Amino acid sequence: MKLWDKGTPVNKAIEEFTVGKDRELDLFLATHDILGSMAHVTMLESVGLIEKDELPTLLSELKNLYAIAEKGEFTIEEGVEDVHSQVEFMLTEKLGDLGKKIHSGRSRNDQVLLDLKLFTRDAIKEIAETTSGLIDILLKRAEETKDILLPGYTHLQVAMPSSFGLWFSAYAESLSDDLELLLSAFNITNQNPLGSAAGYGSSFPLNRQMTTDLLGFNNMNYNVVYAQMGRGKVEKIVSFALANIAGTLSKLAYDVCLFMSQNFNFVSLPTEFTTGSSIMPHKKNPDVFELTRARCNKLQGVPAQISLIINNLPSGYFRDLQMVKEVFLPSFKEMNDCLNIVSLAIDKMSVNTEILNDSKYDYLFSVEEVNKLVLQGIPFREAYKQVGAQIEEGNFTPEKCVDHSHEGSIGNLCLDSISNKKEEIIKKFLFNKIEEAKKNLLQ
Amino acid sequence: MKLWDKGTPVNKAIEEFTVGKDRELDLFLATHDILGSMAHVTMLESVGLIEKDELPTLLSELKNLYAIAEKGEFTIEEGVEDVHSQVEFMLTEKLGDLGKKIHSGRSRNDQVLLDLKLFTRDAIKEIAETTSGLIDILLKRAEETKDILLPGYTHLQVAMPSSFGLWFSAYAESLSDDLELLLSAFNITNQNPLGSAAGYGSSFPLNRQMTTDLLGFNNMNYNVVYAQMGRGKVEKIVSFALANIAGTLSKLAYDVCLFMSQNFNFVSLPTEFTTGSSIMPHKKNPDVFELTRARCNKLQGVPAQISLIINNLPSGYFRDLQMVKEVFLPSFKEMNDCLNIVSLAIDKMSVNTEILNDSKYDYLFSVEEVNKLVLQGIPFREAYKQVGAQIEEGNFTPEKCVDHSHEGSIGNLCLDSISNKKEEIIKKFLFNKIEEAKKNLLQ
Amino acid sequence: MKLWDKGTPVNKAIEEFTVGKDRELDLFLATHDILGSMAHVTMLESVGLIEKDELPTLLSELKNLYAIAEKGEFTIEEGVEDVHSQVEFMLTEKLGDLGKKIHSGRSRNDQVLLDLKLFTRDAIKEIAETTSGLIDILLKRAEETKDILLPGYTHLQVAMPSSFGLWFSAYAESLSDDLELLLSAFNITNQNPLGSAAGYGSSFPLNRQMTTDLLGFNNMNYNVVYAQMGRGKVEKIVSFALANIAGTLSKLAYDVCLFMSQNFNFVSLPTEFTTGSSIMPHKKNPDVFELTRARCNKLQGVPAQISLIINNLPSGYFRDLQMVKEVFLPSFKEMNDCLNIVSLAIDKMSVNTEILNDSKYDYLFSVEEVNKLVLQGIPFREAYKQVGAQIEEGNFTPEKCVDHSHEGSIGNLCLDSISNKKEEIIKKFLFNKIEEAKKNLLQ
Amino acid sequence: MKLWDKGTPVNKAIEEFTVGKDRELDLFLATHDILGSMAHVTMLESVGLIEKDELPTLLSELKNLYAIAEKGEFTIEEGVEDVHSQVEFMLTEKLGDLGKKIHSGRSRNDQVLLDLKLFTRDAIKEIAETTSGLIDILLKRAEETKDILLPGYTHLQVAMPSSFGLWFSAYAESLSDDLELLLSAFNITNQNPLGSAAGYGSSFPLNRQMTTDLLGFNNMNYNVVYAQMGRGKVEKIVSFALANIAGTLSKLAYDVCLFMSQNFNFVSLPTEFTTGSSIMPHKKNPDVFELTRARCNKLQGVPAQISLIINNLPSGYFRDLQMVKEVFLPSFKEMNDCLNIVSLAIDKMSVNTEILNDSKYDYLFSVEEVNKLVLQGIPFREAYKQVGAQIEEGNFTPEKCVDHSHEGSIGNLCLDSISNKKEEIIKKFLFNKIEEAKKNLLQ
Repeated sequence: MKLWDKGTPVNKAIEEFTVGKDRELDLFLATHDILGSMAHVTMLESVGLIEKDELPTLLSELKNLYAIAEKGEFTIEEGVEDVHSQVEFMLTEKLGDLGKKIHSGRSRNDQVLLDLKLFTRDAIKEIAETTSGLIDILLKRAEETKDILLPGYTHLQVAMPSSFGLWFSAYAESLSDDLELLLSAFNITNQNPLGSAAGYGSSFPLNRQMTTDLLGFNNMNYNVVYAQMGRGKVEKIVSFALANIAGTLSKLAYDVCLFMSQNFNFVSLPTEFTTGSSIMPHKKNPDVFELTRARCNKLQGVPAQISLIINNLPSGYFRDLQMVKEVFLPSFKEMNDCLNIVSLAIDKMSVNTEILNDSKYDYLFSVEEVNKLVLQGIPFREAYKQVGAQIEEGNFTPEKCVDHSHEGSIGNLCLDSISNKKEEIIKKFLFNKIEEAKKNLLQ
Repeated sequence: MKLWDKGTPVNKAIEEFTVGKDRELDLFLATHDILGSMAHVTMLESVGLIEKDELPTLLSELKNLYAIAEKGEFTIEEGVEDVHSQVEFMLTEKLGDLGKKIHSGRSRNDQVLLDLKLFTRDAIKEIAETTSGLIDILLKRAEETKDILLPGYTHLQVAMPSSFGLWFSAYAESLSDDLELLLSAFNITNQNPLGSAAGYGSSFPLNRQMTTDLLGFNNMNYNVVYAQMGRGKVEKIVSFALANIAGTLSKLAYDVCLFMSQNFNFVSLPTEFTTGSSIMPHKKNPDVFELTRARCNKLQGVPAQISLIINNLPSGYFRDLQMVKEVFLPSFKEMNDCLNIVSLAIDKMSVNTEILNDSKYDYLFSVEEVNKLVLQGIPFREAYKQVGAQIEEGNFTPEKCVDHSHEGSIGNLCLDSISNKKEEIIKKFLFNKIEEAKKNLLQ
Repeated sequence: MKLWDKGTPVNKAIEEFTVGKDRELDLFLATHDILGSMAHVTMLESVGLIEKDELPTLLSELKNLYAIAEKGEFTIEEGVEDVHSQVEFMLTEKLGDLGKKIHSGRSRNDQVLLDLKLFTRDAIKEIAETTSGLIDILLKRAEETKDILLPGYTHLQVAMPSSFGLWFSAYAESLSDDLELLLSAFNITNQNPLGSAAGYGSSFPLNRQMTTDLLGFNNMNYNVVYAQMGRGKVEKIVSFALANIAGTLSKLAYDVCLFMSQNFNFVSLPTEFTTGSSIMPHKKNPDVFELTRARCNKLQGVPAQISLIINNLPSGYFRDLQMVKEVFLPSFKEMNDCLNIVSLAIDKMSVNTEILNDSKYDYLFSVEEVNKLVLQGIPFREAYKQVGAQIEEGNFTPEKCVDHSHEGSIGNLCLDSISNKKEEIIKKFLFNKIEEAKKNLLQ
Repeated sequence: MKLWDKGTPVNKAIEEFTVGKDRELDLFLATHDILGSMAHVTMLESVGLIEKDELPTLLSELKNLYAIAEKGEFTIEEGVEDVHSQVEFMLTEKLGDLGKKIHSGRSRNDQVLLDLKLFTRDAIKEIAETTSGLIDILLKRAEETKDILLPGYTHLQVAMPSSFGLWFSAYAESLSDDLELLLSAFNITNQNPLGSAAGYGSSFPLNRQMTTDLLGFNNMNYNVVYAQMGRGKVEKIVSFALANIAGTLSKLAYDVCLFMSQNFNFVSLPTEFTTGSSIMPHKKNPDVFELTRARCNKLQGVPAQISLIINNLPSGYFRDLQMVKEVFLPSFKEMNDCLNIVSLAIDKMSVNTEILNDSKYDYLFSVEEVNKLVLQGIPFREAYKQVGAQIEEGNFTPEKCVDHSHEGSIGNLCLDSISNKKEEIIKKFLFNKIEEAKKNLLQ
C-alpha cells in the first residue's frame, strides 16, 4: 500500500531501492506522527473541515495508537511504505473512511517535517539532560581533586603546574558552552512547519497558530516555502550542535587515553572498565575511551554528510531528503550512549596523587619561581635570567606548590560560576511548554 | 626579533616554514591587540603590577598605535614575528623598558586568544548587519512581487502554484534563523580569556573580572584550561554559523541560476551584472550567482577544515592552532562580499510576470481544483478522481488564480512577522556594550 | 567468551558499548577469516609450528566452516565477541585444543587486517564488474542515440548543440577513469599484512612470502609497523575510489532529474520507475535518480568520515579503528545497488527525439554558423559580427544540423576507444590470481 | 580587456567580485598556457586553419613569451582578465591580428582545462621526486638505527618491542603506497582535453591526436562532454592523492611530537629546529612538526572542499569551477614545503639509544618470553600462564633483546624490497615523454 499508488505495479527492485531503510527509521517517528495528527484533526474540526462529532472518535483512536507506540509495539507492516501510511491504515481499519480525513489539508511533506521536529525536540531534551548530568559529575570530581597537581603541557612539553581540579572542570565549562549552541539549535527546531503542505501551502482555511499552540511550539515557520527548505537544514544545525558536544567528549577521551599510558600514568580505571590482550598479559587498555573518541569523531562528521546530500539542491522538496534521516536519526542514541558511558567512567576514575614527585616535572615550576622573584620586586628580565641560570647549572630546586588566586586558576576554580552558567542556559530551553502541550493533547 | 629567542640562530628554512602567513594574517588583529593591551595594563596598575604614573604613559602611546592601526598603516616589520612582538617593539622604542611591562601576567597564548575574540566579535557584528540588510531587501522584493505567480516544484516537477512573494521571503526567513545561530556563536565568543596565560593561569594576582568589564565582554571563560581549549573550538562554531548563512545564499544562488536558464526564464538581471561568451554571441551568464554559490560552498567547508586541524589533539596549546587562522580570518570578508553582491543583485533583479501563461504549467492547479471541490462538499477521494479524469481526458482548464489565506501562504505572507522575528534576534546581540567599552578605553 | 578475558567480569554497560555493532559487521568477514586461517595453518605446518598430521584435520574442519559461511549460515553467538573468536570456538568444540593452534603466531590485529583485505579485494571485484557493465550499457545507448541532438549548456544557458550519444558516452568515459583509480586502490589493498601480529611482528619463524602466495596477494606489506598503519588508511583510499564512482553517478542522476523536469522534457522513464504524488495527480517523479544521487552523495562523504576517525592518531593499534568498519563495510552494497539500479534505468530510459524543434534552442547554432563562415574564408571577427547582427535583428535561421568530425565530437564519438580504455584497465586487476589461490586452498 | 566584452560596461563591484583571485592564480598557469598554444597553432597549421608562413612567426613569439614566463617575469596587467587574454593581448601587440588566431578552434574552457592539466603534470612530478627523496632518507635512517629498540604501543599502552629501524621504514613504505595512488592520479590527469572547446567540440576539423602527441600526453579525453566534466574531478582526485601523502606525514609528525615530549624522550632535534617559550625557560618545542601536522591536516581537507564546490552541479561548464583553482593550485607548494622540511628534520633527528633501560618498559618482553617457551616446546596456554604468574609475582626479568627473523620484522627489515617497491612505481610515471615533448616544442 503506497499513498501515491495509482494502479501501476512498481518494479520490485525499484521499490526496494526507494523504500530503503525507511520502514526501520520511521519507527523513531511513530509517537510523534500520532501526536501531530491529534493536533491537526483538532484544528481541522475548529475550521469546519471535520465534523464536530468525528473529532472525539478520531482522537480516541489516535490515543490508542499512541499508547501502542509508546510501549514500543508499533510496527510498520510489510507492504506499507512509511509511518504516515501505517497510521492512516490502522485508523481506517478501525474507523473506515473517517480515518482518511487525518490527511486533509496536509501533505506527506509537512507531515514528515512535523514528525522530525517533534522527534528532534524530545531528543534534544534528552541530550541536554545527560550533558547537564555529566557537567555535574565533572564539577564534583573537580571539587574532590582540586588540590592534586598535574603537569600542564604546551606543545606536549612539560610546561606549568595544572591540577585535576582544573582539568575536570575545564570539560564542564566546555560542555556548558556546547549547551549554549544546543539551545540555539533547539530554538531553530522548535517552530511549527505544519500547514506548509507540499511546500506551497494549502487552499484550505488552516489555522496554523492553533496547531503551533497545541503542539507547544515556540514559534512558527511562517513562510511555507521556507518551512520545506528547513528540511535538512534543521538537521544539519542540530547535528552540528551534537558534533560540538562530541568534540568536547572526544578531546576528553583523548586526554584519558594519554593519561592512562604507562608514559603518563596520571589516571586509572577499575579493571572492569578496561580490556586486556590475548598475547600481552600485563596491559589494561582504555577501550571505552578509544571507542568514545571514535564514535564522537564519527558524530562530528554528520553535518558534513548532511551538507553533501542537501547542498546544491534548489528550493522545493526532493526525495534526496529521505537519506538525511539515515544519518541523522540514529545519531542521538550514539551521542547519548557516549555521554552516559563517560559519566560512568569519569565517576569511577582514580587519579594519581603522586605525579609531581617525578623529577622530570621539576621544570614545571620555573615560571612560578620567576614570578615569585618578580613579586618580590626583582625586574622580570633579571628574574628570568636568574632562574634560567639555575636550571642550566642544575641547581633548580623548586617548592612544588602553587599559589594562584585569580578567577579560574588552580586556587580559585569558580566551580559555582561554571555551574551557574550551565543552569542559566538549561532554563532557557522551553521544555515545560512542550510537556504541557503533550499532556493536554493526550489527556 | 622573536620573543623566545635565546641566542641560538634558527635555521632559515625552519623560520620561513614556521612563520608561514602569520605576519600577513596578524594584520587582522592589530587594533584588537592594542585595545586588549590597554585593558590589560589598566588592570595591572589596579593590582599594583604597574606603577600609578606608568599607566597614563602606556595608555597614551597605545592610543597612538591604535590610531595608526585604524588608519590601516600598521605593519609588521621584516624580522618581527607577530603582531604582539611588533606592538611591544614599537612601545619599547618609544618608552624603553616600560614598554615591556605590557607582557607581565600574560602569555602570547592568552594574548592571541583575546585578539581573536575581539576581532571575531567585531566581524560578527558586520555580518549580522549585512545579513539584516539583505533580509530587508528580500522582504521589500516579496512585498513588491506578492501577486506574481511562479510554478512551485517538488522533485523539480511542476507541482503547485507559488509566488515571487513566497520565494523572496522564504530566503528572508531562512536568514533570520541563520541569525539565531550566529547569536549563539556570538555569545560563545563574547567571553573573556585574558588571564589564562599559557593555559594554566598565573601566580600574579590578576583581576579578570576587571578586564572582562573593561573590554565589554558578557562573561568570562572562567577555567583557564578551558580558555585555551576554546582556541579552534570558537573558530569552528563561528565558522559554522557563517557556513549556515552561506548555505542559505548558496541555495538562493542555485535557484537564480536555474531561473535564469532559457528553460525557466523566470528572472533576469541587468546586462552589467552578467557576462557573455567569446564564441556564443547570445548568452547572458549569471556568473555573479555562480561565484556566490561557489564561494558560499567553499565557506561551508571551513568548519570541517578546522575540525581536521584541531581534532584528536589533547588539551593544551599546540602550534597547530596557528593554521586555523589561515582558514578562519579571511572567511568574514568572503562572506560579507557575497552578502553585499547578492543584496545588490536581488535589488536589481527583474521578474517575469507572464510565466504561468505557458500551458505546461496548467497542471499546477490540479490540487487547487481538487480542494475547491472538497470545500464545495465533495469527498476528497471523489474530487481527486474527478480532476484526475479531466486531466487524463485533456479537459483540464483551471482558473489560474489561487486563494490561500493561512499564515505564511501566498495570500498571507506574514512579512511583518518575519521582520519581527529578525529584529528580536538582532536586539539580543550585545553590540552596544562592546562599543561603549571600546569608547571608554579609547577616550 | 572473550579472548582477553582473564576472569574479571566486565561491566555490562561497558561491554555493550565496546562490542557495538561488531557482531553484526563481522559477518561480512566470516568466509575471509576462515580462508585466512587455512593459509595461516598451512604455513605454520611448513615451519614446524603445527604437526604434519594436525594440518589436514584443521584444514578439513575449516573447509566445513567455510561452506557454512558461504551459505550465509554462519552466526556469531550471543556472548562471543567477534568472528575470530567464533571460528576458534567452533573449531575447539570439534577438535579440542588443536583448534586453538590457529591463533599461534598471530594476533587479532593482523587477523582482522587480513580479513579486511580479503573482503575488500572481493568487494572491489564486484564493483569493478558492475561498473564495467554500466559502461557497456552507456556505450550501447550512446551508439543507439548518436544522431539525436540535445542542447548543450554552459552556465545552464543554452549554448551549443550536443547529442544523446555524447551525453551517454561522457559518463562511460568518466566511469572508465574511475576504474583507473579503483585499480590503484585495489593494488594498495592487495598486499599481505599477515605476520605483522600486533603491529610489531613475531618471534616465531613465520614465512610471510608463503601466505602471500597462498592467498594470491600481489605483494606484501613488508614492514610490520606499516602493515598495522595500513588499517584505516586502506579503507580511506578504497572508499575514495568508491566515492569517485559515486561522484560520476551522482552527476548523471542530477542530469536525469533535470532532464525529466517539464522545463526540459528530454528523457522519460517507464511508469514503474517513477512515483506519483498523493495530491498532485499528474506528476511522474524521478525518485530512483534522486535516491541514487543522495546515496552517492552520502558515499562521497565516507573518506572524510574515516579521516575524522583515524586522523591525528599516532602509530600503533587503537580500538578507534573498530568504528571504521561501521562506515566502510556497508558502503560496497550501497554502491553496488546504485550501479545496478542506474544500469536498469539507463537501459529503459526513453529519449525525446524532437527537442530541438523548440525555437528557444535556435541560438544553439550561432557558433556553428560563425564557424561555417570562417571555413568559407571569412575572418572570424567578421563572421562573429555578421551572426551577431542576424541574431539581434531576429533574422537568425540556422540549419539544425551539425558536422563535427574530430575525435570525441558528435560525429565521431570514438566509442571503441572508450571501450578499449576500459578493457585495458580491467585487465590489470589481478582477479584471476586471487580466484586461483582461493580454489587451491579450498580444493 | 575582457574577451566577452561587447561594449556594455560591467558594474565595477561585479567585476571585482567575479575576477576574484584569478589574476594572481593564473600566474601558476602562464608557461603552460603558452606551451599549449604552441601545440595548438602547430596543429591548426597542419589542418589548414593557419597559413604555412604564419606558423613560424607565431611560434617564435610564443617562445619569447615562454622565456619571460619561465623567468617569473610574466604579469597579468590591470584590466586584463586572465592569463589567456594576457597572452593573446601580448601577441596581438607584436603581431597584430595574427595574434588572435591562436584562439581559433578553442574556447577558454578547453584552454584552461589544458593549462590545468599541464600544470598538474609538472606539479605531480615535483611531488613524486620530493617524496621519493624523503623515502630514501627514511630508509637510510632505518638502516642506521635498525638495532636501536623502542617500545611498541597498542592503545598507547606499552606492548611489544619495536625498533627505530621499523619505525623509520614504516613511513617509507607508507609513502611508497602513496606514490601508487599518485601514479593513478597522474594517469587520469595525463589525458588531452584540448579540442573539447566549450565542452561540446568544434565544427573545425581539429586533429586532437596531433596535439595529444605534441604535448606528450599519454592519452586523450575522447568525449568532449567528459573532457569538460573532468574539470574539478581531476583536481579532486589529484588533491586526494596529495591528501594521502599528507596523511602519512601528519602521522609521522604526530609520532615525533609525542616522542619529543619529556614523557617519552625518544628523539630530539637540533636546537635550531625548535623554539622556546618566553616564560618557560626549559622547553624545546617541536613547532616544525606541529606545523607540518597542521598543514598536512589542512591539505587533507582539500578534496572535501572541492566536493562541496562541484557536487550536485549538472554536466556542462559553470563559473563555480573558478573557485576550485583557489584551493587547488596553492596546495602543491604547501605539500612540497612539508616534504622538504620533514626530509631535513628527519635527517638531523637524534634518537635515544637508552630508552629500554627504564623499568616501565620491562613488560614489553612478556610476549617474547611466552614465545620463547613455546618454541622450547611448552604449550602456549601453559607458557602464557607461566609468564603471567612471573609478572604478577614481580619476578619477571626479561632479556632485553629480540630475535625476529621473518620478513618485515625487527631483524629483517627488507629495506631493499621497500626501496624496490618505490622504484617500480616511480618508473611508471611517464615523465620522460613529457619532458621530450616539451623540448621538441621549445627547440
